[in-house]
Amino acid sequence: MIFEDHPHRRYNPLRGEWVLVSPHRSKRPWQGQSEEPAREERPPHDPTCYLCAGNERANGAVNPDYSGPYVFDNDFPALLKDTPSEEETTSPLFRAHAVRGISRVICFSERHDLSLPSLPVSAIRRVVDVWISEYEDLARNHGWVAIFENKGAMMGCSNPHPHGQIWASDFVPSEVAREDEAQRAFLVETGENLLISYCAEEQDRAVRIVVENDDWVALVPFWAVWPFETLLMPRQHRPRLTDLSGAERTSLADILKRLCRRYDALFQTEFPYSMGWHGAPPRMGDTAHWQLHAHFYPPLLRSASVRKFLVGYEMLAEPQRDLTAEQAAERLRTLPET
Amino acid sequence: MIFEDHPHRRYNPLRGEWVLVSPHRSKRPWQGQSEEPAREERPPHDPTCYLCAGNERANGAVNPDYSGPYVFDNDFPALLKDTPSEEETTSPLFRAHAVRGISRVICFSERHDLSLPSLPVSAIRRVVDVWISEYEDLARNHGWVAIFENKGAMMGCSNPHPHGQIWASDFVPSEVAREDEAQRAFLVETGENLLISYCAEEQDRAVRIVVENDDWVALVPFWAVWPFETLLMPRQHRPRLTDLSGAERTSLADILKRLCRRYDALFQTEFPYSMGWHGAPPRMGDTAHWQLHAHFYPPLLRSASVRKFLVGYEMLAEPQRDLTAEQAAERLRTLPET
Ligand SMILES: O=P(O)(O)O[C@H]1O[C@H](CO)[C@@H](O)[C@H](O)[C@H]1O
Ligand SMILES: O=P(O)(O)O[C@H]1O[C@H](CO)[C@@H](O)[C@H](O)[C@H]1O
Repeated sequence: MIFEDHPHRRYNPLRGEWVLVSPHRSKRPWQGQSEEPAREERPPHDPTCYLCAGNERANGAVNPDYSGPYVFDNDFPALLKDTPSEEETTSPLFRAHAVRGISRVICFSERHDLSLPSLPVSAIRRVVDVWISEYEDLARNHGWVAIFENKGAMMGCSNPHPHGQIWASDFVPSEVAREDEAQRAFLVETGENLLISYCAEEQDRAVRIVVENDDWVALVPFWAVWPFETLLMPRQHRPRLTDLSGAERTSLADILKRLCRRYDALFQTEFPYSMGWHGAPPRMGDTAHWQLHAHFYPPLLRSASVRKFLVGYEMLAEPQRDLTAEQAAERLRTLPET
Repeated sequence: MIFEDHPHRRYNPLRGEWVLVSPHRSKRPWQGQSEEPAREERPPHDPTCYLCAGNERANGAVNPDYSGPYVFDNDFPALLKDTPSEEETTSPLFRAHAVRGISRVICFSERHDLSLPSLPVSAIRRVVDVWISEYEDLARNHGWVAIFENKGAMMGCSNPHPHGQIWASDFVPSEVAREDEAQRAFLVETGENLLISYCAEEQDRAVRIVVENDDWVALVPFWAVWPFETLLMPRQHRPRLTDLSGAERTSLADILKRLCRRYDALFQTEFPYSMGWHGAPPRMGDTAHWQLHAHFYPPLLRSASVRKFLVGYEMLAEPQRDLTAEQAAERLRTLPET
């Protein structure tokens, strides 16, 4: 199709937003900022790391001598349990309301030198189990539980010890509300679940699939913004993490490892990204329109040191990308997983 | 008000989106990525700069011996004039369409060592005039003309020579469509122009104003996402850049200089940002709901080398900020302009 070579726009039905694609622009030379590649050679235990077992944290607390995943309340949380109540503002141009929540940190392993994809599948499965048990715990009293990982200094991560975050809030955040609306409207209009229909069509077309197993599919979405963005979904209808069977939790650990090893192989570096889970909000009764999925948003474009910047045009007009989703998927698909 | 110290959300009526504010989190220590401060001491003319007068560009073209603003077609444009036509895709999950447009570069000055705020007001006025004449030229055949500047390596700018960009497209981009809708709905509901009402209320409240002159107001919007984000607006109803009087063009040059000098003074560095203009799209007949404005989105948070990252939670849930809009405005307001 002509869209391989010429400027065009694609529509993201999950966010109701367009992206400008400029495939001819990939040849542009780069003289701008170059990123510091990830520091190599980390020790298995770093005495100065506030996430390593047995070490002291910034607020004076001491980590236990844990092994496997370890969860604790963030020492500098963005959300707090005991925010005083206050009346909502009334002027339509000055709307604000108090919020309550909890921010936690999850260390994926006691090993300072590893990352999610370098753990064995059984250890990743333990991370999946902790995501789910934390979700169950926090979903009881919160409107949303955000489970995410910022990986790499480029993505604002301040410590290379493998870890992610869990922020639970009494409100449903904007991005989730947006996806909720889009999926609901699609079900009303077509009688079908948006992401289940989409995933089926992608499997017929094959060009954007990166890696699959019995239960899961990872692909570069047709409307991807970040150069090597991917979407990870179960094949069956699973509105939430808690709906996954034991087998699906293990196969999730498998596909996470395989997807991230391809990322690491792409530019021979610990591939930076922000990733996180979207599913039906905890308090929602009817979840027929929702399908669980994880987004991976990685910034690298051409090498371990050259990233894509989403700046002027992207912030003020709309997201823009150079290589196409199909080109990105092909590159990731042809890489080794070891 | 309690919102000074406690976690809360604020609503952005121009984009229909919330932002999470965590004022108590400003004390968080930072051990993550530190940015390279802008290279100091640039020569007035750099023989290796492809934007300096008389030098050769990447595609072999040679810049004339210009002085003042100089505009040329981008050598690696994201948009092209002659994209082949193609039928739109029909499946609701795979929507795409071809686009046409032009990308230009505008050097603000022949002086490699200066920046917008270090030019005299008369030279900034010439930049304003060129923005407007380019707009007039491109608006004739395009649905939108994006006028913006990425400043600083941190904002994806690959050359410190003072310059901005102009991308004209046959479509109206998502961000603009979103603001169009919000302003239109506000007019229908209240009979008033959203930003004119907002600006009037802000002048009564005073706490978020940064700098003003006879014709213009710059403030940190109530719903700001970036730490020192500002919104610059005319006092009178002006839907587009082309509606500005000669006096308003000069006072725009004045307030641009004053605002940016405060930015530069904040962390004693050439303050990086992406900025750009929003106004009624060229082909729109009824523009009563639109008010012209510029957004400044600067990434720095605490110093010339520590920025805010909009990553995991921000990408997957909703934007989050630490200091409040009022605190940011106060810091900018109390800085010198020289
Ligand atoms: O055209 P430039 O300055 O090389 O490129 C810069 O601005 C563009 C428009 O915001 C972005 O798409 C690029 O990612 C950025 O590096
Ligand atoms: O909590 P951390 O890891 O220190 O902070 C990081 O992730 C947060 C959530 O995405 C962001 O708000 C911060 O800007 C980022 O530096």
